[in-house]
Amino acid sequence: MTSIGNTEDAGSLISVTVIGTGLIGTSIGLALTEYGVRVHLQDVHAESVRIAEARGAGTALAPERQTDLAVIAVPPQSVRTALADAQRRRIARHYTDVASVKAALPAAGADLGWDASRFIGGHPIAGREHPGPGAARSDMFRAKPWILTPSADTSQETIATARRLIGLCGADVVTMQPEAHDRAVAMTSHLPHLVSSLMARLLRSYDHRALELSGSGLRDFTRIAAGDPDLWTDILGSNATAVLGALENLQHDLEMTRRILHALAASPGAAEAAEAPAYRELLRRLLEEGRAGQLLIPQKYGAAGRAYDKLQVLLTDREGELARLLADVSELNVNVEDLWIEDSADSPVGLAVLSVDAGMASMLSDWLAERGWPVLGESMSADPVAGRV
Amino acid sequence: MTSIGNTEDAGSLISVTVIGTGLIGTSIGLALTEYGVRVHLQDVHAESVRIAEARGAGTALAPERQTDLAVIAVPPQSVRTALADAQRRRIARHYTDVASVKAALPAAGADLGWDASRFIGGHPIAGREHPGPGAARSDMFRAKPWILTPSADTSQETIATARRLIGLCGADVVTMQPEAHDRAVAMTSHLPHLVSSLMARLLRSYDHRALELSGSGLRDFTRIAAGDPDLWTDILGSNATAVLGALENLQHDLEMTRRILHALAASPGAAEAAEAPAYRELLRRLLEEGRAGQLLIPQKYGAAGRAYDKLQVLLTDREGELARLLADVSELNVNVEDLWIEDSADSPVGLAVLSVDAGMASMLSDWLAERGWPVLGESMSADPVAGRV
Repeated sequence: MTSIGNTEDAGSLISVTVIGTGLIGTSIGLALTEYGVRVHLQDVHAESVRIAEARGAGTALAPERQTDLAVIAVPPQSVRTALADAQRRRIARHYTDVASVKAALPAAGADLGWDASRFIGGHPIAGREHPGPGAARSDMFRAKPWILTPSADTSQETIATARRLIGLCGADVVTMQPEAHDRAVAMTSHLPHLVSSLMARLLRSYDHRALELSGSGLRDFTRIAAGDPDLWTDILGSNATAVLGALENLQHDLEMTRRILHALAASPGAAEAAEAPAYRELLRRLLEEGRAGQLLIPQKYGAAGRAYDKLQVLLTDREGELARLLADVSELNVNVEDLWIEDSADSPVGLAVLSVDAGMASMLSDWLAERGWPVLGESMSADPVAGRV
Repeated sequence: MTSIGNTEDAGSLISVTVIGTGLIGTSIGLALTEYGVRVHLQDVHAESVRIAEARGAGTALAPERQTDLAVIAVPPQSVRTALADAQRRRIARHYTDVASVKAALPAAGADLGWDASRFIGGHPIAGREHPGPGAARSDMFRAKPWILTPSADTSQETIATARRLIGLCGADVVTMQPEAHDRAVAMTSHLPHLVSSLMARLLRSYDHRALELSGSGLRDFTRIAAGDPDLWTDILGSNATAVLGALENLQHDLEMTRRILHALAASPGAAEAAEAPAYRELLRRLLEEGRAGQLLIPQKYGAAGRAYDKLQVLLTDREGELARLLADVSELNVNVEDLWIEDSADSPVGLAVLSVDAGMASMLSDWLAERGWPVLGESMSADPVAGRV
């Protein structure tokens, strides 16, 4: 494939073809149309295109001429063929994708006869909603990272076009090597998903009454196991090498922990029991290091190091008082980062938890107390921890 | 030790000694004092008792005579000696604890010379706040399960007294065999904590930039790893046998998964590649079964099978509009189960998500739409899933 010429402005983005109108593809369409970009929507499922079009993400009509960029927004295993097909049809000057696995593609370019210079891998870190075009939002990517993984072959023009796309979506460009990207997501996303699934799977052999006793810790730990098995088979299969590496590291550490627990489980008379304090210290150190690792995770992208305090306000009549509380809070003009209600099942009494910029908490606390609100004291910035005795 | 006599009413609870004024002990004190029970607070840390007393959880004064019940609210490894000490001092007619491990205790009774007939193991499933007496709440246990694990030796009087305690705390009594309890919490709480810690620990070897890319899935998955290492060493060490069993099950399944990934990671030319579809199907089935396991977890105690729908409302001026939205919602008198804001970092635009009883969602949606609110459509009852492509 020859170069198409470089008469277009570097990174100009007048028209885009979105291939795959799921959650991500449709959200991209919504973001771009807000800036007047002409978006053409394509999907193997006609119904999905219809919904995306009705939401205002673009048109189902085929473009009359080559668009500036094609965004391949299909599951990882399908990117390769969708990209080859799109290039064969020459539907765009530049190509990118949004799959969560990146290293396999550039190598495959030559085999499939497509032009690797016109392609740049992309992976927006966003999208925790229900899948599908109905859940799409134009602000899905705003202030979120969007990884680009240019290969040695990727042209500067293609890079600039992808940057323009990301800019219009309001996201932040993060450039990474494809292999480094895949290793990182294997550890931060794919292995957690796998382990969460395997743990949830083990729960099936426990009686339901025992599961009634589970706390919020288990719910959070297994939340990701609710993900679509087909999609995740695709993701894990596409990134099998990197996930395998991360999994083997975990297996090593689990075996080490198994030995510690085995020693601690020994009956009080056994030889190991004398060394119990030493084993307990090993276990404590693992947990300590786990806590240190947990603290490295930014609690919100871009917010690493930014601290929030939580204020707890008791609502004796949850429904009546919440609106009044919010009104009092907004009067002070303090930025409420997050707000949720911890309720006591069927009780009308609830606890409103307000997460505010650290440093504003005491001011807000005083303000609310003056207005007669029962403020229960600030909790730590760290997330509350389940399973306390 | 001889029986103290049975002149007291079965299950009467006039006075209680709380030994250990942490989060749970202090919360029990707060709940009991609301019903006029005389609560005596004890702790090895005088400061902790002072805070609990100032919160209104009881008095730091020693009881003048034996109290009806002593609640041992110390970490698992310390229950045994605290209980033996309390019985030696004959501080109460009946004894219970709140530790998350139950099987080890009754067997130890005879060795330590205490009266097992006067003791019943207890474990309230509650407490996700910051630890310590300052975070205590009198409604901590309301409508939550509180497990009792009577042994063959436990007297009916002791059982009745513990039931009275739990009743005053507003919790639901669940009776279990100590061993069944320990196996259940090993799987639903202790192993998840351990695995979460080990996963978080592995993150330390990744560069921080890669961690900036982590999504909400990883944050939830590792949240419990933030727990106190000393306390969790104590818990895991106390329940080592049951945790070991659960861990070995997980290790078995991880090894099976490793083989699948190994086959899928094989280069396209390798012999395994021909069988890739079969391996992918195995992987898909594991994930499918994981999702089935995840669905067994009640999303809220007592709410198993109760469905909620989520309504999303776009707030273009988050702070100004939230109070107005709440006011409009409360006018309809629909029970809002939960409410949170998904925000776009520093953007004033936010998405308010209202979780309401399924069946009420469309009514509320219409109500809000009539009032000019941009309702973005209902999402599924299932939790949103991270990492969608």
